[in-house]
Order: sequence, then structure tokens, then C-alpha cells
Amino acid sequence: MPGQIREPGRTVTSRVLAVLDAFGPDDTDLSLAELCRRTGLAPATAHRLAGELVAWGGLERSGDHHYRIGLRLFEIGMRAPGRYGLSNIALPFLEDLYEVTRENVHLAVRDGHHAVYLHKITGRRAVGAPSRSGGRLPLHATGMGKALLAFSDYELAEETIAAGLSRYTSHTITSPGLLRRALVQIRRRGFSVAAQEYSLGTVSVAAPVLSADGQALAAISVVVRSSRANVARLGPAVRTAAMGISRQLSSTSAASRERVG
Amino acid sequence: MPGQIREPGRTVTSRVLAVLDAFGPDDTDLSLAELCRRTGLAPATAHRLAGELVAWGGLERSGDHHYRIGLRLFEIGMRAPGRYGLSNIALPFLEDLYEVTRENVHLAVRDGHHAVYLHKITGRRAVGAPSRSGGRLPLHATGMGKALLAFSDYELAEETIAAGLSRYTSHTITSPGLLRRALVQIRRRGFSVAAQEYSLGTVSVAAPVLSADGQALAAISVVVRSSRANVARLGPAVRTAAMGISRQLSSTSAASRERVG
Repeated sequence: MPGQIREPGRTVTSRVLAVLDAFGPDDTDLSLAELCRRTGLAPATAHRLAGELVAWGGLERSGDHHYRIGLRLFEIGMRAPGRYGLSNIALPFLEDLYEVTRENVHLAVRDGHHAVYLHKITGRRAVGAPSRSGGRLPLHATGMGKALLAFSDYELAEETIAAGLSRYTSHTITSPGLLRRALVQIRRRGFSVAAQEYSLGTVSVAAPVLSADGQALAAISVVVRSSRANVARLGPAVRTAAMGISRQLSSTSAASRERVG
Repeated sequence: MPGQIREPGRTVTSRVLAVLDAFGPDDTDLSLAELCRRTGLAPATAHRLAGELVAWGGLERSGDHHYRIGLRLFEIGMRAPGRYGLSNIALPFLEDLYEVTRENVHLAVRDGHHAVYLHKITGRRAVGAPSRSGGRLPLHATGMGKALLAFSDYELAEETIAAGLSRYTSHTITSPGLLRRALVQIRRRGFSVAAQEYSLGTVSVAAPVLSADGQALAAISVVVRSSRANVARLGPAVRTAAMGISRQLSSTSAASRERVG
């Protein structure tokens, strides 16, 4: 099989995964030429690998030499165990929060220095928010991320600071000292607020889903229009829902095995 | 790279995908031994491929020689384009239906002879339903599936019949003649009803999301407890929501490119 050893230094597996990685969050589909450009693969190799992925269902053809992510990958991705256990328990609580607020409601877990959004509930009246299911946003600039940071080991905050606090708006916390102080306050209050720190016009209020030993397993948030934000009212509601999820998680025997993040 | 050509007749790609396929909908994690059993791979090969998938993030280690699906696959799977476009437009309509009914609300597309569930909204009072996001259920035995069948080419129904109408409960339609008559009635009414045809105790009411030429692109359903089912009330609500999604899909220029199924 000469095609499989033509590019020394890259395993076939890494080339298959590079094809999947080529698809970004905003790509509806990619041409074969674009796939080659993004992966550095030769056209014949990219064509063959994409063909194998199409046969499996992980990619779908979307016109002449164009590909998109297929339903098979969606199905398998939904088996990430954080989705079940955690998601099944959290969903009714998220719906309760949506009913009370009619705003964007989210569930996320931490992955490195990002919050990965497992669920987003949104309605007709909710403000347009940059979050989406399957998306990821930076820890230090979102309510969700600050709730995850505040209830994780101290080292995580220091690593996040060391990795650099990128600025997204004029309200983003980019000073290590300010971030550390904000995290202390979040730990004390039990919920976090991010006011236009990642995107202008929105305020996010978040609270952690905690393990029995007080570590954040996940977090939930409500994102509202800045002009409508009533933090005094939202904070306790979000915190109460997060506590309900925490309690139900720890009362299920599977809780420790379902731990994610 | 001798390890990559040790098992003739299977490409490396097919072996990587076999590792992913080994994870079923109900598997929290799998041991290396179980991975080998399900894939037919030699332990050294399975261990190496799983290691590459862990390094990429598609699998995560969950204890000694145990693996589970990782967040990276969840993120990539969520890029299946049916999710955006269709999902973004459908979500507020689904939330409306949830608010009106407080029951299980779903969005699904067709894949072969199954409905693949893209979204499930559920609350505290909703009946336990076998559906889940990322799951798939048979076309002929669910309200969702019958709505997709009724508004697809006639050949699809005949292929589904030829593939065999499996029985799930004593109410499942297993007679080709009865299924054909049911589909005619669904086309006329604009919505489908499945009363305990896949699982006892639940009734599903579904309606198609239609393209401009009247073909089902997707379908939505509400699943309620049999004892609470008020089809006369649910049918028009589900149909109205589906028509709203159809209208908004066809008014977005991207509609034809986002077509899924």
C-alpha cells in the first residue's frame, strides 16, 4: 500500500484526523483543494482518505469534490459520556431556567483553557450570543469560564494567566491581579458575572456544578442583553439551578464515573 | 512502518474508524480488551490507534486501559451542517412547542431507514421517551419516521417495507398495506401519530419540515404520555411549528445548501 507510507513522519491515523480537523466551526463544506491546503496532504491522499470517510459516513459529499461533516460523526460525538449522565440530569434544570428567564441558557465543561458548550437553549426573544452547542470560549472572558476557574484548583487560574489573558472587548479582564480578585469574589458569592467581557451588549451570569469535594465538574450560565441584565435576580436563580444539578449528580451512583472536563 | 500493514485487507483508516465504531450509544467507556473484541484488532494495534486518538482528543482515557469518546469528537460532530442552518432556525420553534406542551420535543433528519435525532428538549414533567440527541429510531415505528416517510419519494416507503417492518410493540405497523394507507392519511392531514408503536405508554405526534418542492428535509415531534395524549390539540400545534421552520428555512438563501438527510 504505497499510498499509506508516501509521507514519512506522519502516520495514516494523523492524516485521517487532519482531514477531520480541517473543518472549522463555521465551515459548511470544504472543497478537495481547500482540504489539501489545510492539511498539507497530496490531492490523491486527501481524495482517498475523504473517500474512506464518506464510505463510513463521517463525511458526506456536498457537490462535486466538496465535503462536509456527516451524521455518523455527529452520532458518535454525542456519545462523549459527559453528554449523558451530566446532560440528562442537567436538561430539566436548564429548561426551568429558560422558562424563568426566556434567555440563552447554557451547560459547559472545561477543556484546557476553554469552556466547551454541551448545550444551548435559546428562544425567540433571547439576545444573539456567540455561544453554540459544540463551540468553545475562553475561560477568563466569560461568565461560564470564570465560574469554572473559580471552583477549580488554584493552579488552573495561574496557568490560564500564564497562557495570556487575551482582550476581546474593552471590558475583558486582562490584568492577572484583577482576575485573581474576581475569582475570590466568585467563590464567595457562588456565581460569576461577565459584563460585555467577551462580546459587547451581553451579560453572562454563571454558577458551577460541583462535585462532592467542591470542584467544578461543569457550569451553567444565562446570557442576557446588557440593558436587561438584573444580576441580583439572575444570580440566585442560576446558582439554585446549578446546586440542583450538583445534588442530583452526586446522588446518582454513576456520578464519579461520568466526571468530565 | 510495519505495524500499519500487518493486517492485510483492512486499511489503517478503516481500523481507526472501527475503533470509533466500537463505542455504542450505551457505552460509557470500553476496556482495551473489549475494544479488541469488538474491532477484531490485535491488542498492540488497538493500543496504538487508541493512543493516537487520545493524543488528538477524540478518545479520553478513563482509568487503566479504558477509553471513552472525547470532547474533540463531540465538537467536530456538532459541525455536521444539518445542525447549523436547520438547527439554528428550528430551535426557537422547538422551544415554543415545549412551552405550549411541556413535553418531549424533537428535531430529526432521515438517514437510511432511520430518523436521526438532532435535538431533544425535555422537562421535569415529560414522560420518559426512548429518544435522545444523537440517537436513531426506525422510520416505520415512530411518529417522526412516518412523517419523514410520508413526505419523501414513494420509493423510500417501498424500500423500507422491503427491508422488513420489525415489530417493537403489539401496536407497531408491520403490514405493508396498513403502512401505505397510514402514509396516505399522514400526507392528507399534514401530521403523523404513532400510538405506542415503538414504546408502550407514549404517543408521538410529528410533522415534516418541507423544502419548497414539498419534500421532507427534517421532521419535528412531540412525545407525550398515552393517557395525556390529545391528538386533536397536538397535531395542529406540531404542524404549525413545522410550517414555521419550513418557511424560515426556504427564506434563507442558504436553505438549499444546508439540505440534509
